[in-house]
Amino acid sequence: MRMVDVIQKKRNGKELTKEEINFFIEGYTIGEIPDYQASALMMAIYFNGMKSNETATLTQAMVESGETIDLSAIEGHKVDKHSTGGVGDKTTFIVGPLVASVGVPVAKMSGRGLGHTGGTLDKLESIKGFHIEMTKEEFVNNVNTHKLSVAGQTGNLAPADKKLYALRDVTATVDSIPLIAGSIMSKKLASGADGIVLDVKTGSGAFMKKLEDSESLAREMVNIGNNLGRNTVAVISDMNQPLGFEVGNANEVREACQVLQGENIEDLRLLSLELASHMTVLAGAFEDFDSAYKTLEQNLQNGKAFESFRTLVKAQGGDVSVIDDLTKLPQSKYHIEVTAEQDGYVSEIDAESIGVAAMYLGAGRATKDDQINHGVGITLKKKVGDQVTKGEVLVVLHSDDEEPTNSIEKINEAYSLSKEVREKHQLIYKVIN
Amino acid sequence: MRMVDVIQKKRNGKELTKEEINFFIEGYTIGEIPDYQASALMMAIYFNGMKSNETATLTQAMVESGETIDLSAIEGHKVDKHSTGGVGDKTTFIVGPLVASVGVPVAKMSGRGLGHTGGTLDKLESIKGFHIEMTKEEFVNNVNTHKLSVAGQTGNLAPADKKLYALRDVTATVDSIPLIAGSIMSKKLASGADGIVLDVKTGSGAFMKKLEDSESLAREMVNIGNNLGRNTVAVISDMNQPLGFEVGNANEVREACQVLQGENIEDLRLLSLELASHMTVLAGAFEDFDSAYKTLEQNLQNGKAFESFRTLVKAQGGDVSVIDDLTKLPQSKYHIEVTAEQDGYVSEIDAESIGVAAMYLGAGRATKDDQINHGVGITLKKKVGDQVTKGEVLVVLHSDDEEPTNSIEKINEAYSLSKEVREKHQLIYKVIN
Repeated sequence: MRMVDVIQKKRNGKELTKEEINFFIEGYTIGEIPDYQASALMMAIYFNGMKSNETATLTQAMVESGETIDLSAIEGHKVDKHSTGGVGDKTTFIVGPLVASVGVPVAKMSGRGLGHTGGTLDKLESIKGFHIEMTKEEFVNNVNTHKLSVAGQTGNLAPADKKLYALRDVTATVDSIPLIAGSIMSKKLASGADGIVLDVKTGSGAFMKKLEDSESLAREMVNIGNNLGRNTVAVISDMNQPLGFEVGNANEVREACQVLQGENIEDLRLLSLELASHMTVLAGAFEDFDSAYKTLEQNLQNGKAFESFRTLVKAQGGDVSVIDDLTKLPQSKYHIEVTAEQDGYVSEIDAESIGVAAMYLGAGRATKDDQINHGVGITLKKKVGDQVTKGEVLVVLHSDDEEPTNSIEKINEAYSLSKEVREKHQLIYKVIN
Repeated sequence: MRMVDVIQKKRNGKELTKEEINFFIEGYTIGEIPDYQASALMMAIYFNGMKSNETATLTQAMVESGETIDLSAIEGHKVDKHSTGGVGDKTTFIVGPLVASVGVPVAKMSGRGLGHTGGTLDKLESIKGFHIEMTKEEFVNNVNTHKLSVAGQTGNLAPADKKLYALRDVTATVDSIPLIAGSIMSKKLASGADGIVLDVKTGSGAFMKKLEDSESLAREMVNIGNNLGRNTVAVISDMNQPLGFEVGNANEVREACQVLQGENIEDLRLLSLELASHMTVLAGAFEDFDSAYKTLEQNLQNGKAFESFRTLVKAQGGDVSVIDDLTKLPQSKYHIEVTAEQDGYVSEIDAESIGVAAMYLGAGRATKDDQINHGVGITLKKKVGDQVTKGEVLVVLHSDDEEPTNSIEKINEAYSLSKEVREKHQLIYKVIN
């Protein structure tokens, strides 16, 4: 088999066979197929797409290119959640405890990564003493005992995806739905969960701006999951403004705790319940979505979900008093108000700009070596549809810098006001399974 | 400027600016832009094409990536001819002397290359003593004195094209009309001619099988030439069977000499007159095509064209007696007849298979280090439309091998016979200027 023929076949719009896809992924992983042939194939896929079964085969090949995590020592049906990424998304801290609160095991492996804020691990480290270092045995024991544990992702998972993604990033071949779907799913599948709930964001602050693209991506990922023997559900949720009111590390843990303590922070609470309900149904803990939802809602109100979170924090060395009294979370030196320059209604909040403002404050990493500042972040005081009067506070910046000019500028860019009230965004657009 | 943005722009179907194209070609030539970005761009161009002015800009950038040949020391308007390649195409040996016979200078630079037969230089070396080694001054003097000289191509012409072509060859991005046009024209333009006549082949034995593709390629090349200040004409000619009756090195020189000596080998003679007429008109030697054609036709009959060829051979050390008495050209050991297996009419002769059969005999090079065997080749005894009876000779193989089984097999593959007579192919489909 020659790689040039594989490229030409895809270029001509033909379907690649399993043998051809495996030939490519195996050869590329070990460096026998050069980057210049891989990038030509990626561009041909960008233009000609892939059939569902090709995408599944590609994903499977990427999974098999490296290690896979074996979660069989954990009792029960393991369900994972994955979000395609948005600003202010702290659902993981609510969904994990919620799912665990009904006895479904959550073996969460997370990363740090680059971004506007830190990753799940960084955010959790806002809680004094919380650590994620443990052996595989400790992790398994934690999940078996407490139904919930969070560990750093180890192992060489889907190296072909890692190599291909880096290549796609510099060859303008990222925006291909089958390739995005395959990339996300290869990592999820290598992580060993039995079922997967995907939170596919849509809107100005999401990778996919248009609902139809988000839906295509969701369908593609659900197809891959189901094709490869994992029950998969995708929820398409709004990212036309940040989720909840808090952006940052300690900020996001604080808001998640508030929801876990029964506060009604509407969009965050509803999306968390939606995701957790699908997860527990996939795990077989409930017969249907509605009964799952009802029980999980109760577990938010009766403190069971928060208790699961407290157990997690305790088990991983964290200071529980910090989450019992949220004022003990890291704080920034300054709290700077950004106010409205005119009367009106908030018509848009560009989540991307809010994220960049948070990163400027020090909440995230632009490069691998950057340090996360856990105490800095942003509190939105107004969301889309809210009325504001001139001089009223739009946002509070939690900053260690007395004059965070760049961030203020970004906040002003992010907010659009209009004379007439704008209808609120729908929170959940569609569920695909 | 970032290469990834240039790729993305073309991927999105936008027109690239001169700055962007120059950035790419300059960066790629010196190795600052890696192959994997170049191949992604090539694939994006494959799918989205290029506007005429983009193609011209790309060609110009490839010309400027290396040396260019300065022919200004040669008096008069220099016109070059280029064929996109076919089997049995020996028009160069007829056209050059024909054009020179009316005083238009022909400064021919040719290569050897890989192929079914040798290149122009290899074929000329069938003539004992003929050599192409000379200084630039000798070359210029030869052309000024005799109006015709043939030299090996020297200098680092269009290195960007060379590098890109090698990349396209292994990334399934060869078949893109703007890229093919740019590649051919960059080399022609770097060679310094004032005017260019292109012989664009079409049909089963040509790179472009379909007339409409050949026409697109021709138009693209004519556009580039005219855009960059060289008068350019393209003739679209038939390659549904080999041109003339002879394929090989000595074989082709022999047939060219026969035409120069006034023999009427119809397709070869007509195409040569057509190309030479356009060249002399471009050079300003005639007011119009018809008067050029008439004079050139006379110069075939009255021996002037052959005399030009004799002068060339003499000036470059060749033994003129070899072309005066064509039996002195190199001969193969064996002459093997391939006969018809049934009665009928020749309906097709796949030129590609005839070429491969010639290469198997040793007429061409499969790799750079292969030696050319000047005496071997193929004589077609029947062409499309001819009637044959079972046992009649289709082809004579000039072979140094007593049993050239592979070649015979290829000949049998090449010939198709039908019960009914097939209309002859048109020789010249279109002229584009």
